[in-house]
Amino acid sequence: MMNTELYYNSSDTICAISTPPGAGGVAVARVSGEKAFDIVGKIWCGKDIGSFKSHTAHLGEIINPTDGSVLDQAVLTVFRSPRSFTGDDVAEISVHGSKWIQRQLLNALIGSGARLALPGEFTRRAFASGKMDLAEAEAIADLIASSSAAAHRQAMTQMRGTFSKHIEETRAKLVELASLLELELDFSEEDVEFASRRKLHDLAAETARTLRRLSDSFATGSAVKEGIPVAIIGKTNVGKSSLLNTLLGDDRAIVSEIHGTTRDIVEDTAEIGQYLVRFKDTAGIRQSDDPVENIGIERSRKAADEAMLVLLLVDSAEPDVDGLAIEKLDPARTIVVFNKTDLCEIPRQFRNKIDSMLPGVPSVAISALNENGIEELKVLMTDVLDKKLKNSSESDILVTNARHAQAFAAAATLLKAVADGIDNMVPADLIAQDLREAIHNLASVTGEITTPEILQNIFQSFCIGK
Amino acid sequence: MMNTELYYNSSDTICAISTPPGAGGVAVARVSGEKAFDIVGKIWCGKDIGSFKSHTAHLGEIINPTDGSVLDQAVLTVFRSPRSFTGDDVAEISVHGSKWIQRQLLNALIGSGARLALPGEFTRRAFASGKMDLAEAEAIADLIASSSAAAHRQAMTQMRGTFSKHIEETRAKLVELASLLELELDFSEEDVEFASRRKLHDLAAETARTLRRLSDSFATGSAVKEGIPVAIIGKTNVGKSSLLNTLLGDDRAIVSEIHGTTRDIVEDTAEIGQYLVRFKDTAGIRQSDDPVENIGIERSRKAADEAMLVLLLVDSAEPDVDGLAIEKLDPARTIVVFNKTDLCEIPRQFRNKIDSMLPGVPSVAISALNENGIEELKVLMTDVLDKKLKNSSESDILVTNARHAQAFAAAATLLKAVADGIDNMVPADLIAQDLREAIHNLASVTGEITTPEILQNIFQSFCIGK
Repeated sequence: MMNTELYYNSSDTICAISTPPGAGGVAVARVSGEKAFDIVGKIWCGKDIGSFKSHTAHLGEIINPTDGSVLDQAVLTVFRSPRSFTGDDVAEISVHGSKWIQRQLLNALIGSGARLALPGEFTRRAFASGKMDLAEAEAIADLIASSSAAAHRQAMTQMRGTFSKHIEETRAKLVELASLLELELDFSEEDVEFASRRKLHDLAAETARTLRRLSDSFATGSAVKEGIPVAIIGKTNVGKSSLLNTLLGDDRAIVSEIHGTTRDIVEDTAEIGQYLVRFKDTAGIRQSDDPVENIGIERSRKAADEAMLVLLLVDSAEPDVDGLAIEKLDPARTIVVFNKTDLCEIPRQFRNKIDSMLPGVPSVAISALNENGIEELKVLMTDVLDKKLKNSSESDILVTNARHAQAFAAAATLLKAVADGIDNMVPADLIAQDLREAIHNLASVTGEITTPEILQNIFQSFCIGK
Repeated sequence: MMNTELYYNSSDTICAISTPPGAGGVAVARVSGEKAFDIVGKIWCGKDIGSFKSHTAHLGEIINPTDGSVLDQAVLTVFRSPRSFTGDDVAEISVHGSKWIQRQLLNALIGSGARLALPGEFTRRAFASGKMDLAEAEAIADLIASSSAAAHRQAMTQMRGTFSKHIEETRAKLVELASLLELELDFSEEDVEFASRRKLHDLAAETARTLRRLSDSFATGSAVKEGIPVAIIGKTNVGKSSLLNTLLGDDRAIVSEIHGTTRDIVEDTAEIGQYLVRFKDTAGIRQSDDPVENIGIERSRKAADEAMLVLLLVDSAEPDVDGLAIEKLDPARTIVVFNKTDLCEIPRQFRNKIDSMLPGVPSVAISALNENGIEELKVLMTDVLDKKLKNSSESDILVTNARHAQAFAAAATLLKAVADGIDNMVPADLIAQDLREAIHNLASVTGEITTPEILQNIFQSFCIGK
């Protein structure tokens, strides 16, 4: 378990507003620590908190300790140690959500001996008291930030421990072999082999592959979490901005009749099916003498390369894909979108041309203006992304956290070295060292081994009050 | 009591997010109505809600009913009828405050049979079930909107029933006399007098005066609630914008060395002591050939007239108050502020001139640039406002609600007519009619008598979730 000395003032009683900032019907202040009930007792006018059972709610009044005036009516809910989120005694005070009351309530709590909580400090205490491991704690921040079904599912899986269990099982196997290897070292003079070299080799090699896959899944996992990059490309004036606006649901990009209006790449996100999608609205691709526009076109091609999904937008009335280098597009992540189908049919010849240049690529006919075909387009986008994401993770687990991805990549490299070392008859003490380091990397993910610096980095990205 | 048939779908079970909008550590959904526990039971994975005692909190999971996936870990707090805010069965579900989770939770509740609550509908139900009267319910919205100690105190007084009690006592006295008067009418043929005309006259006249004072206190009460109007006036380039910025704490008005920069009146608020103050930054007053600026000067004079407190700002280095018509300022609500005292002393002769033009007006020396004297200025402002507000309400009660002020003014007029009618020997039935109408007006304040239209007007200004 963690050494609590590593924590900054971990014996302080801390307080914060845990509900979103701003005014609302109700705001909740959370107080956690040894003195939580003593401190709240100083500003509480109601029955004796000492008599309250854990997990009970009580109506009373909050008193401003400086002048004895009533700050608000409040509901106080008591969670007694260890049956609370943090493991400490926890008081939750629900008041009317005026900003002024929230501020005064914090002042009253601080004036009575509590300290304002640091970002994520409640969760950090939950980790310190063994209520959750580090990966589970990190998932709470992801859960709060999640803005799509897919991102939410990843965070939920991680918070509920499925992810940690997976890591722990792998680590346990490696630890077992490492102990046998270390035992050998103690008896090194006698030239015994407790650990089966073959078994160790196979386990190291297989685990290295699994961890590498997990580490590689970060590209996808990160996209799921932050928004999957989607590029809309096409010639100028085919309606890229109109399509983007329709998909975003409002007027975030400038739409104009003048060719080449959109020079900057406008980024914005929308929920498409279960996915959060991050659109890159790109300048139209055409030969241009205008140097500013040429830069735009360059960036537009780059956006298509970096996108996980490319919408190739074509004007059905003026079918033309010259200069778009569409043969370079990856068919597995491209959708052809025929726009302006309110004006005319898609010319048969042109459709055939596209089919021959991008074989097997799905297509859809829309009118961005009338919003026809938009639902079909969204379904098609979801289908393509479903397929793409299923391929990139064989297990259900996607790594969404850069820290974890780095640890897995490092462990994979070390375990590969372990396997190679066994093949090359490297001495047991050198192999043992790599193995120990790989185990250490895995342990850092779930937090069995950690440092104050790592913890500080992790929790400072949390919101205050969580 | 209220007729519940007046309420739109008052038997529905309603739900809403009660915490402020946006993402945060924790969000709370409130569910109220006959079927609250049945509906929450459909999305709750944990112990049986039927077994939960009132006012207890329980850890469990919220399930998405469409696919059975886990939406979030949650704490469910149960308040059983009638021991709840609304008087109905109430469930409060505390989840991680991601916007996505909040939306899904509402979807899940609605999908399980709840209806999204209208603004203020929880409070409206609390009123309908007799948990509070109408003035107390209205105070909840004021409390949530309050942004200063003074506004908060007014709302708190009203919410805790002090205000209602005052109104009710007055009404009870009038009702007693009215019944005696009506009894006379039943025996009108016999020419008896159950009600003492003198007693009724005195009570009506005195109550009319009290209600008129209450109604008049609305100007002050409204200012306390919305922000007390303060005008900063002075010649151009004396540092009005700098002073405003210093008092506001940031750069909200354009400051420039060019005379006459500030043409528009910039309005902004700050907390000064216990008061919320609404500054009117005004164009400098000077003779100007520029018609746009002349309009600014006109508006500036108007702002001074409308303000509850005027800060007359004078440049100590260029002391000049010509053209400001300072003899028209009300000494009881003016403070002279000598600026730029970092550059020079205030000339003695000029100080004497000001003293003779505005006798008894307090003054303070500041440097808006160095922020010297600003705290002294704030204390002086608070003192002047304290005095002014104490004068405008003899009792502790300020009317902060336009509806109440109107009702009091109407009742005062009617009671004045009652008193005059008695003096002029008007027949009892006519007096009784005015008296009944006055009582009706008082009853409308606390909601003993009301209409669906009035209720709708009142509660639609609430936030959803309260």
